[in-house]
Amino acid sequence: MKQLENVRTFGGEQQVWQHQSATLNCTMNFAIFLPEQAKTEKLPVLYWLSGLTCTEQNFITKAGAQRYAAQHKVIIVAPDTSPRGDDVADNESYDLGKGAGFYLNATQQPWAKHYQMYDYIVNELPVLIAEHFPVNGKQAISGHSMGGHGALTIALKNPQRYSSVSAFAPIVAPTQVPWGQKAFQHYLGDNQTQWTQYDATALVNAETRLPIRIDQGDKDSFLTEQLRPELFLDACRAHHVACEYYLRQGYDHSYYFIATFIGEHIAFHAKALYQDPRTA
Amino acid sequence: MKQLENVRTFGGEQQVWQHQSATLNCTMNFAIFLPEQAKTEKLPVLYWLSGLTCTEQNFITKAGAQRYAAQHKVIIVAPDTSPRGDDVADNESYDLGKGAGFYLNATQQPWAKHYQMYDYIVNELPVLIAEHFPVNGKQAISGHSMGGHGALTIALKNPQRYSSVSAFAPIVAPTQVPWGQKAFQHYLGDNQTQWTQYDATALVNAETRLPIRIDQGDKDSFLTEQLRPELFLDACRAHHVACEYYLRQGYDHSYYFIATFIGEHIAFHAKALYQDPRTA
Repeated sequence: MKQLENVRTFGGEQQVWQHQSATLNCTMNFAIFLPEQAKTEKLPVLYWLSGLTCTEQNFITKAGAQRYAAQHKVIIVAPDTSPRGDDVADNESYDLGKGAGFYLNATQQPWAKHYQMYDYIVNELPVLIAEHFPVNGKQAISGHSMGGHGALTIALKNPQRYSSVSAFAPIVAPTQVPWGQKAFQHYLGDNQTQWTQYDATALVNAETRLPIRIDQGDKDSFLTEQLRPELFLDACRAHHVACEYYLRQGYDHSYYFIATFIGEHIAFHAKALYQDPRTA
Repeated sequence: MKQLENVRTFGGEQQVWQHQSATLNCTMNFAIFLPEQAKTEKLPVLYWLSGLTCTEQNFITKAGAQRYAAQHKVIIVAPDTSPRGDDVADNESYDLGKGAGFYLNATQQPWAKHYQMYDYIVNELPVLIAEHFPVNGKQAISGHSMGGHGALTIALKNPQRYSSVSAFAPIVAPTQVPWGQKAFQHYLGDNQTQWTQYDATALVNAETRLPIRIDQGDKDSFLTEQLRPELFLDACRAHHVACEYYLRQGYDHSYYFIATFIGEHIAFHAKALYQDPRTA
């Protein structure tokens, strides 16, 4: 592990680290915000998954989350959105290849060798974080757009690992929208029965218990074609699953939207993380 | 005037506009945050001057200021840091030419035709803002690094126009440090008597009355060579001028530092702006 950045902010430290990922077969960066209390206490972790084209930098420079993470004593880990490096397969479009890992395990060529973001986020990264940082084992997960898809699917598939999940403008039904269909066909192949394991709307079920919150701007230009939150909300209703949903008037898909409501999301997760009765 | 951006955030609107500047002889962008109350009330304005290499974008995407501006009902105007365009003189170094206007009126060639940022900030821009936006005539000014220099010098030269001034890690004595000496020699020529009109440490005097606040990180890599806040503080003491000064332990020169304390600066300006007895 190599430290690339360490900057004081809101009394804590915003760090960026580089490490060799065995899961992704490449060198990866991740960002971690450590509140001041992390010097003396073990704290819970909120994972933040970013959207298409992002790196580990977007969230930490634009969301203003550190203020609330410091206030609520929550560590935030923000990984990159795909494998990186010259020998990693890529595509010229912004919604496939680098910056567009979709938080799944690719089975198709040329992607399978590196595009294993699901295993990286669920398994490798938490072990690495636990080895190097003062965490107490409690985890929550959130994300934006493609990262909202990642957060919802990962939490729904691993409810024992996360106290809560939230998303800003998530892709809730990738198997039914162009972004998801394109990515899944390339990464997972034509057999659509393989796709539903990474579709939040297909995954939510009567056993789902963890707190879920979604914020969505009604001026988001991707709302009706790519995001379609009503599909997930209908599935929640059908299974009698609670989902806090806020349609925000006048807000778009940008970090200005995230910055406005990230404080509420961190408070939501902090409540779940600090009330979670499970021992670490 | 052409609107380039209009995004909702913290209940207000973050806008970016483009206009033809008569003072600078070029097309300029500026950013303006309008709190929700600007729809029904005339509000005071805080001008924010950015540092070397910045455009109107850095502050609005990284500082997290909109939250506090909304809370305190203050409009924030963030101009660009120099004239722009293909026919504007430039230099390959980051600290001269485009992105490095130093908020002065250049007298030397090839700079004088466009580099008139002092007049642009003091005279042209406030008139433009008053024509197009619901402002009440009360103004304050703040900035970072080169922009802190701009804020301090502009407020000290025009105390009747600004209710208060603040700065993050300002260049307080440009005539005595490399950044300022290089810029002033190119923009103003060799006659150093012309330089002191743009040097905050030289400008502060016994008549100075407006509230002044400076925050400075002690891990700022420019602190001892380029910023040297002690020179300004000594001048304030010599003239019995009050200056709130905070040396912040562990903080550097970045927007992470600004984000941490911008809320306190906006509260400082809001107090002065809303208590200012002068009518608009």
